[in-house]
Amino acid sequence: MDKVNLAQKFASFSEQFQPRIVGELNGQHVKIAKVQGEFVWHHHEDADELFLVVKGALTIQLRDRNVRLTEGELFIVPRGVEHCPLAEEEAHIVMFEPAGTLNTGNVRNERTYEATRA
Amino acid sequence: MDKVNLAQKFASFSEQFQPRIVGELNGQHVKIAKVQGEFVWHHHEDADELFLVVKGALTIQLRDRNVRLTEGELFIVPRGVEHCPLAEEEAHIVMFEPAGTLNTGNVRNERTYEATRA
Repeated sequence: MDKVNLAQKFASFSEQFQPRIVGELNGQHVKIAKVQGEFVWHHHEDADELFLVVKGALTIQLRDRNVRLTEGELFIVPRGVEHCPLAEEEAHIVMFEPAGTLNTGNVRNERTYEATRA
Repeated sequence: MDKVNLAQKFASFSEQFQPRIVGELNGQHVKIAKVQGEFVWHHHEDADELFLVVKGALTIQLRDRNVRLTEGELFIVPRGVEHCPLAEEEAHIVMFEPAGTLNTGNVRNERTYEATRA
């Protein structure tokens, strides 16, 4: 039950696409991640997923359109909706989703990462 | 299902301590608020509450200590824990909490405000 300084948490790791858990409330996890490049197309069967960009820019590719987020912008991907994050340069993002949500959703591959505590 | 630009949302209202809903996921609401001065001591029986400061500074007064948050810092007040937000100058904050959470929790007074959509 300490406060979380996001900048300090981001400085504590360098791996990309490996979410870190920085908070838990009401069965949800607050996670942070550094992302660069294209992730993997996936969806979450039972989890809506929020992306908030705190540094850089992130494109949430959807099957029918792209949503480009810059600092201070957020987007919620509803459960079941296929998406694929993409960042040309490294972006820092905050995510909010149910505890236990896997980063690659319905897909398991080399990108799959069980989120750890920052 | 559009992206949310927090700066634009904050610019859309000026009332203090009147949370606006900017997103909903997994039964939770994402809210934003402008706060200044001291709020009211209260707790939420069944809701953990996250505060993230995006502009200025916010002190979360707890009965046994104060937690001072500046930009980019967050704190989660667990359910049942009495707290009273305080900001010397206007601060802009993002909150995550279950949909339907009342800003004054167990208290109803002139500060009570049913969150509306931004």
